[in-house]
Amino acid sequence: MNDHSFSQKAIEAHRLWQGKIEVNSRVPVDSMDALSIAYTPGVAAPCLEIKDDVNKSYDYTRRWNMCLVVTDGSAVLGLGDIGPEAAMPVMEGKCVLFKAFGDVDAFPLCIKSQDVDDIVRTIYLLSGSFGGINLEDIAAPRCFEIERRLKELCDIPVFHDDQHGTAVVVLAALLNAVKLTEKTKEKTRVVFSGAGAASIAVAQLLLEAGFKNLALCDRHGLLYPGRPKGMNEEKTRIAQIINPEGHQGDLSHALKGADVFIGLSAAGLLTGEMVEAMAKDPIIFACANPDPEIDPEIAHEKDAYIVATGRSDYPNQINNVLAFPAIFRGAFDARASKINEKMKMAAAHALADILEADELSVTRILPDAMDPRIRETVAKAVFDAAVETGVSRI
Amino acid sequence: MNDHSFSQKAIEAHRLWQGKIEVNSRVPVDSMDALSIAYTPGVAAPCLEIKDDVNKSYDYTRRWNMCLVVTDGSAVLGLGDIGPEAAMPVMEGKCVLFKAFGDVDAFPLCIKSQDVDDIVRTIYLLSGSFGGINLEDIAAPRCFEIERRLKELCDIPVFHDDQHGTAVVVLAALLNAVKLTEKTKEKTRVVFSGAGAASIAVAQLLLEAGFKNLALCDRHGLLYPGRPKGMNEEKTRIAQIINPEGHQGDLSHALKGADVFIGLSAAGLLTGEMVEAMAKDPIIFACANPDPEIDPEIAHEKDAYIVATGRSDYPNQINNVLAFPAIFRGAFDARASKINEKMKMAAAHALADILEADELSVTRILPDAMDPRIRETVAKAVFDAAVETGVSRI
Repeated sequence: MNDHSFSQKAIEAHRLWQGKIEVNSRVPVDSMDALSIAYTPGVAAPCLEIKDDVNKSYDYTRRWNMCLVVTDGSAVLGLGDIGPEAAMPVMEGKCVLFKAFGDVDAFPLCIKSQDVDDIVRTIYLLSGSFGGINLEDIAAPRCFEIERRLKELCDIPVFHDDQHGTAVVVLAALLNAVKLTEKTKEKTRVVFSGAGAASIAVAQLLLEAGFKNLALCDRHGLLYPGRPKGMNEEKTRIAQIINPEGHQGDLSHALKGADVFIGLSAAGLLTGEMVEAMAKDPIIFACANPDPEIDPEIAHEKDAYIVATGRSDYPNQINNVLAFPAIFRGAFDARASKINEKMKMAAAHALADILEADELSVTRILPDAMDPRIRETVAKAVFDAAVETGVSRI
Repeated sequence: MNDHSFSQKAIEAHRLWQGKIEVNSRVPVDSMDALSIAYTPGVAAPCLEIKDDVNKSYDYTRRWNMCLVVTDGSAVLGLGDIGPEAAMPVMEGKCVLFKAFGDVDAFPLCIKSQDVDDIVRTIYLLSGSFGGINLEDIAAPRCFEIERRLKELCDIPVFHDDQHGTAVVVLAALLNAVKLTEKTKEKTRVVFSGAGAASIAVAQLLLEAGFKNLALCDRHGLLYPGRPKGMNEEKTRIAQIINPEGHQGDLSHALKGADVFIGLSAAGLLTGEMVEAMAKDPIIFACANPDPEIDPEIAHEKDAYIVATGRSDYPNQINNVLAFPAIFRGAFDARASKINEKMKMAAAHALADILEADELSVTRILPDAMDPRIRETVAKAVFDAAVETGVSRI
């Protein structure tokens, strides 16, 4: 199917669906007696109990399972700043995935403002109606400030999936890829193409997981402390950690002898020559969507050992749906007040460990999205980590 | 069942339900191919079409049928200011009614602020995600300013049900009650107990319907222009219309010779003596919940001709569920940009006219909430009025 007919098929499907989500009632309202329990006057009793103990909102309302999926429409897919109404099909799709893969009720909201104060205030004011908040498709660098401020304000999980969901899946994939080589976490050199929100979050989680040799490149080359161009607070922070010596150079320079390429950037940025210059058995994660940083066939011609992309039509799909539904499932089961680093780390290890030794191969470093083991295993690991780190409220 | 065991039954039901609403998927996600249509990369196509024409958000997302049910938790039932989390059982119940009686998807949000600017800004910023907004249980007088400002800002219906839903049902009830007497709209004297948001909205709609002789009383007695105590902008506005002569007095004084009592106030405010002092065949709408302004049996002992209450255990229940689901159904079917006075008036007349002459009686001035005629008849009337007044977008 060519691109045009695929787009037409998607348009027709959306027109037929008339919305990908719906809100349904869970209670009988077939008599006035039933109404008097679900609504007035019966409903006053649970209201008063919640007034006295706000934690009972998890018992008497859907809050325990309700996730807000919220965007400002500023960085939707690769489409850029398309505004709140146009972002809604993506947000509804995300809610569909939450339900299908995590049994999480998720509701989409698109905020008609790209002002940080507006976005933070709006989401905070709604936080009493939800059990958790999934930030989606908000442009960097304001996504960092929004998430940081909301985490301070809210007593429920605040999770920017473009950062942390990606980090969990990439780490899981890398842990399994490394298992298939002679490489070790400590000695593996990992070079990133792209230094946006996702790259920085992946780098952070890789550091926590024990990877020690990381380099981030954007269009201005390697990040280093004090670089005059294209820096922001988050880039400076990570540069100080991973490149305190201030090494400089472009992506091609950085990749010489590197073991791993992680692309969270744009189509075509990785060339065959760059792959040739990498260390033996290079691992290539080319995650740009819809077109990866390098055509997987070209990468293999240049002796790439493992190639992963964001696409479902090649092996080794790096897809956030492997993580976020089960992460929220685990956090919600624990009535967690946050999703902390330990919970993300537990999710990544659980996701990596789903594949038994005899299942793991260079064309299968991650389980398939439809694998039923993901939900139970990852959710359980996140739940346990929430309890161990004291953020559970059950 | 006594009050305590009834409350216990409601608590147990809420605990079992674990939330009265849920968000469900309307699309298949049983294969990666299905996902690629509902989510990336297929979803980009409807996003881009909406970006070019925002009205297509009604075709490709659930917006066409999605109503926001929103409160600040400041005037919930008769419970007062109980806060956003404790208000949620009521809001979820409202959403259940929207679905059951109007096939409207409704989602509840409770805002953690009672500042007018906060509330207006928050709801406005979310308005691109919904087809309409139902304001709920927001205290007077700020509910007036919130509704007025949101109507100016938003291009979708903004409807404060406590005002306008009540007005529609009370007008319908009164139209039918008057039919059963020798009274005429023009000559009927209507006295209100309570001058809150609901009373003022009912009075406004009664004026538009042709009732000419109205009086509003609150705890300080009759409203009159320039009254020194307990006034606000809305009370002053309605007082200038209905009492320009500046008549003064208490409820007991106002009711002498009156034809209709409309109570939207508190239990016990109407005494048997006051009913005795009314005109022949008095009509009593004692809507205070859960305990009406007068016990219906006492009212009948004093020769009240028609008695209606907010309760389901007496005849003639005045219940907003008779109106709001079908009003939104009609407005949504028309993709209306607002719910205007003509649409409310059409709803009231359609609701009143559902009962045929042989169905109408002093113990049946309104159809039962379960009557299937309500939805089709009222929604059709509202739809037609939207088209006629040019606020439809289909």
